[in-house]
Amino acid sequence: MKRIYIVSLTLIIAAHAVGQSTVTTSVRDYRQKNEHKILKEFFDLLSIPNVASDTKNIYRNANYLVNELKKRGLKPRLLTAADKKVPPAVYGEWIVPGAKRTVVFYAHYDGQPTDPNEWTGSRPWEPVLRSGALKSGGKSLPFPAQTTKIDSEWRVYARSASDDKGGTFTILKAIDALRAKNVTPSVNIKLFFEGEEEAGSSNLREIITKHKALLKSDGWIICDGPAHQSGKKQVVFGVRGVTSVDLTVYGANRSLHSGHYGNWSPNPGFRLVKLLNTMKDSDGRVLIDGWYDDVEPLSTREIEAINSAPQYDEELKKQLGLSEAEGKGKSLLELLNQPSLNINGMKTGNVGSLARNIIPSTANAVLGLRLVKGNDHKRQIEKLRKHIEKQGFYVIDREPTEAERLKYPLIAKFLGESGGYNAQRTKMDLPFSIGTIKAVRTAANGDIVTLPTLGGSLPLSIVTETLDDFPTITVPIANYDNNQHAADENIRIQNLWDGIEIFANLMTMEF
Amino acid sequence: MKRIYIVSLTLIIAAHAVGQSTVTTSVRDYRQKNEHKILKEFFDLLSIPNVASDTKNIYRNANYLVNELKKRGLKPRLLTAADKKVPPAVYGEWIVPGAKRTVVFYAHYDGQPTDPNEWTGSRPWEPVLRSGALKSGGKSLPFPAQTTKIDSEWRVYARSASDDKGGTFTILKAIDALRAKNVTPSVNIKLFFEGEEEAGSSNLREIITKHKALLKSDGWIICDGPAHQSGKKQVVFGVRGVTSVDLTVYGANRSLHSGHYGNWSPNPGFRLVKLLNTMKDSDGRVLIDGWYDDVEPLSTREIEAINSAPQYDEELKKQLGLSEAEGKGKSLLELLNQPSLNINGMKTGNVGSLARNIIPSTANAVLGLRLVKGNDHKRQIEKLRKHIEKQGFYVIDREPTEAERLKYPLIAKFLGESGGYNAQRTKMDLPFSIGTIKAVRTAANGDIVTLPTLGGSLPLSIVTETLDDFPTITVPIANYDNNQHAADENIRIQNLWDGIEIFANLMTMEF
Repeated sequence: MKRIYIVSLTLIIAAHAVGQSTVTTSVRDYRQKNEHKILKEFFDLLSIPNVASDTKNIYRNANYLVNELKKRGLKPRLLTAADKKVPPAVYGEWIVPGAKRTVVFYAHYDGQPTDPNEWTGSRPWEPVLRSGALKSGGKSLPFPAQTTKIDSEWRVYARSASDDKGGTFTILKAIDALRAKNVTPSVNIKLFFEGEEEAGSSNLREIITKHKALLKSDGWIICDGPAHQSGKKQVVFGVRGVTSVDLTVYGANRSLHSGHYGNWSPNPGFRLVKLLNTMKDSDGRVLIDGWYDDVEPLSTREIEAINSAPQYDEELKKQLGLSEAEGKGKSLLELLNQPSLNINGMKTGNVGSLARNIIPSTANAVLGLRLVKGNDHKRQIEKLRKHIEKQGFYVIDREPTEAERLKYPLIAKFLGESGGYNAQRTKMDLPFSIGTIKAVRTAANGDIVTLPTLGGSLPLSIVTETLDDFPTITVPIANYDNNQHAADENIRIQNLWDGIEIFANLMTMEF
Repeated sequence: MKRIYIVSLTLIIAAHAVGQSTVTTSVRDYRQKNEHKILKEFFDLLSIPNVASDTKNIYRNANYLVNELKKRGLKPRLLTAADKKVPPAVYGEWIVPGAKRTVVFYAHYDGQPTDPNEWTGSRPWEPVLRSGALKSGGKSLPFPAQTTKIDSEWRVYARSASDDKGGTFTILKAIDALRAKNVTPSVNIKLFFEGEEEAGSSNLREIITKHKALLKSDGWIICDGPAHQSGKKQVVFGVRGVTSVDLTVYGANRSLHSGHYGNWSPNPGFRLVKLLNTMKDSDGRVLIDGWYDDVEPLSTREIEAINSAPQYDEELKKQLGLSEAEGKGKSLLELLNQPSLNINGMKTGNVGSLARNIIPSTANAVLGLRLVKGNDHKRQIEKLRKHIEKQGFYVIDREPTEAERLKYPLIAKFLGESGGYNAQRTKMDLPFSIGTIKAVRTAANGDIVTLPTLGGSLPLSIVTETLDDFPTITVPIANYDNNQHAADENIRIQNLWDGIEIFANLMTMEF
C-alpha cells in the first residue's frame, strides 16, 4: 500500500520534481559513477583539523566550505559572531523559483577534541580507509585506484568522519547529484554549517539572532548523530540538552610524599570518590534531590514510536561486551528520555608510567549532564551544586584561598558550563514532520525508525527559541558504531552513500 | 655536660681522628671556601636525567659517579644484575688502616619519573637556583658569580635535588672535606649508590647477594628522605615498606557517546568510585578486612622516642593548608606506624581541554600501600585483592576476554607490584645506634629527633634480610618541604651544607 501511495504522489508532484523513488535512482546512478571522486573530496575535507578552539584551522575549514559553495553557485557567506575568534557558521542557499517552502539543512563542521595518541594506527586528521571496522579486524587500505571497486562495507577513519563532516559533506553531495541529474528541489534550500557545536554552541544564539531574516524557513533538517543500532535509518524529533560541570576537590596545598604523610594528610582522590559515590546508585539512578522532578512526560504518540522501534538492547550488549546495563531492565530508548549524569573524565595524580608515590594535591572530575524536555540546564546544574553542599562541601567557583583551606575541611571548586542548552522535541504530527518521515522512508526503501528523542545533544533549543519555535527534525546518517567523540571515529561507506540519497529525497519532499 | 663529654671523647680518639666538634669546624671551613665549586658540581650531577627505566641515561649517571670516585681513589666498581638493563649500583671504598669497624654509606642516584609539564618555570633536569621556596615567592637566580655570596636559604630546584642525589653528593663532599683537612675516618667507609630505588629496588637483592663479601660491614647508614618538619636533624631506625597495585575496572569494550548511551551503558568511573569508596572511611581508616592485624607493636623505647619528638602537626597543617588531618586526632608520627592505603593516581576519560562527552571504556587507579613492621607486602596485597572480590568483582591479572565481559558484570584487572618490600626497624639501643645518634647530635650541635620509623620507604628489609640482619640506620638530610616525588623538587642550600657536616661526623664516629 505504502509503495502504491508513493508512486501516486510521484505522479502528482512530477511538475516540478521527479518522484521520490526516481530521485533515489538518479542520485544512486550519479554516485555510482563518481565514487572515487566523491571519496577523494571527502578526504580533502577531513584532512583539515577542526577543533573549535583551534581558530586558525577552523577558519581553514570554513573557507574551504565557502569555496565549495561558491563553485556550486550557492551564494556562500560566513556568519560570524562579534568575537572574531568564534568559529563562523557557513551559510549558502539554493532558491527555487516557485517553491513555497524553505528548509534549512544543518550540519556542523567542527569536531570533538581528541588525543592523537589514543588513535589506533592512524591520526585524527589523516583519513584512512579500512576494509571494515577496526574492532572486526579492518585493515588499512591505500586510497583506491580508479580501477579498484570501492566496497560499501569499507570505512573511513578520521575525526569528524561521521560527526559531523559526514553530514556536511553528504548534504553538499546531494545537491551535486540533483544538479547533475537535472532534478529541481521542491523547496528552497538553505545551508547552515555550524563551527562550534562540539564546543557547546556558545555563540550560536548570537549568530542566528543576527541573521534571523536570512535564516527564515519552515523547518530545519538537522544532520547529526548516528542511525539506529539496528542499522535502520531513523528520523528523530528531539534531542537531549547537554551541559557539564568541572569539579575539583582538594587535599594539601601541594603534592605530598605518600610515605611521609600517608595516613594523615587527606587524599583528594578519596574525597572525590566519597563525593561522587553519593550521586548515583549501582543501577545508574541519580540520587541528587529533584533530579527527575521536572521531566515532561512523553505523549501517547511518542510512547508508541518508542515501542514500535526495534528492540536492540540484547544485541547491543553483546557487541559492547556488557553483561548488564543500568536502569533495572528498562530499554535504552526509554532511558534516553531521562536526564543523565556521567563521569566524562576524572583524574588525580598520574597512572601508568608517570604514577608516583604521592598524595596528590587535587582531584578533578568533569561531569556530563544530559537533559530532557522539561529540564533547564542551569536549574539542573544548581541541583548538583546543592547536592555537593549537602555533602558538607564549601562550594566555590575559583581556587580556594589559604584562609579558606584552613577554615573548611571539604572544599569543591564547581564550574558549571556556560554554553549548556536545553532539550528540544518537535511534535510528530506536524505537516513538516509527516513530510520528512515520508522522504526518509522513500530513500530507505521501506521501514525506518522514528523516535521522539535522540540520546545525543544538538543546540536545537537555541535554534527554536531564537527563531520563533518552528520545527527541527533530526535525520542522522552515521553508522551507530562510529566511535564519535572518541578515538578511531569512522563512517561506513554505505552510510555515506545512503546519506546522499536521503538528503536528495528531503530536498524534493512535499509538505 | 654533653659538650664536655664530647671534648673528652675527642681527646681520647685524637690518635686517628680529630674530635667531632673539630670535624664540624674543619668541614665547615672547607665548605665555606669552596661553595661555588661545590654547587657547580652538584648542578652537573643533577643535569643527568635519572629515571630508572631510562637505561641510557641511568648509565650516564653511574659512569659519572664512577669517574668521581676514581678521581678520589675510592676504587669504584659497577655492581650489576644479570640483566644489563637493570641500573647498576655504584660501589666505592676507603679502607682505613687500623679501623676496626666498617660502615656502608647508602644513597640512591635514580629519581622518580616526572611530567616536565607539571614543573613551575624550570625543567626536572635543568637545575635552577631560587631565592627561596617557590611557594614563598622564591625567584629564579642566575648561577652565582664567584664574587656573589651564596645565601644558605636559597634552594636548588631539580629532580633528585633532595631525593636522592642530594644524599649521594653530600656523602662524596664529606669525603672531600675530610681529605682536604687531613682528617682520617674512624671506620672503613664503603659507598653503595643504588640506581633503581624509585623503581622499587627490584634487583637490589640480586645485586647485594652477588657481592655479599664486598659489602661486609658492621652497619649501613642510609641517606634518604627528609629531616623533621621542625627543621631538626633526625636519626631514624626504620622505614615503612611499600608496594602498589594497578587496578582497572571496565565499562563497555569501547568508549561511547555519553548522549546515545548515557543512563544505560555502565560508567567505569562510577564503578571505580563505588569500589574505592568501600576501602577507606572519611577518617582515613582502611576498611579492608585484616588490614591492621599483623602490625608489630612499638617497644617502650620507641614510644618514648615518638613522644619526645617535637609535636609539629598544627604548624604543618597551617603550612599545608589543611583544616583537618585524618586519623581522628592521632599525631602524624603515631600514624606513620600504621599501614596506609593511598590513591597515587586515578584516571578515566580526560579532563581539562581534552574532556569529551563520552562514557569511557575503563577506569584506572594506582593504589599505594605503605607497610609497617609485621606486615608482609604480598600478604597485604592479597587482603586488598580479596576485598575487591568481596565487592562482587571478578578479579583477573590481564585484560578480560569478550566471553568474560559478557559473563561478569563487574571485572577488575588487579596487578600487584612485583618489586614491593617490607618495613624494617633497627633496635635503638645497639652500639651502632648509640654511636650514630651521638655523631649526628654533634654535627647538629644539640637537640635532634630520633624516631623508630620514617614514613617513607627504603628497601632496607631487602638489605638486612640478604646480609644477615645487621643494623641499618637512616640519616636524612633534605628539608621536609622538598617536594620529593612531585614536580618542583628542591633542596635548601643549608641542608646541603649540614649534610656534608653530618656525614663527616658519621665517618669519624665511634662504636
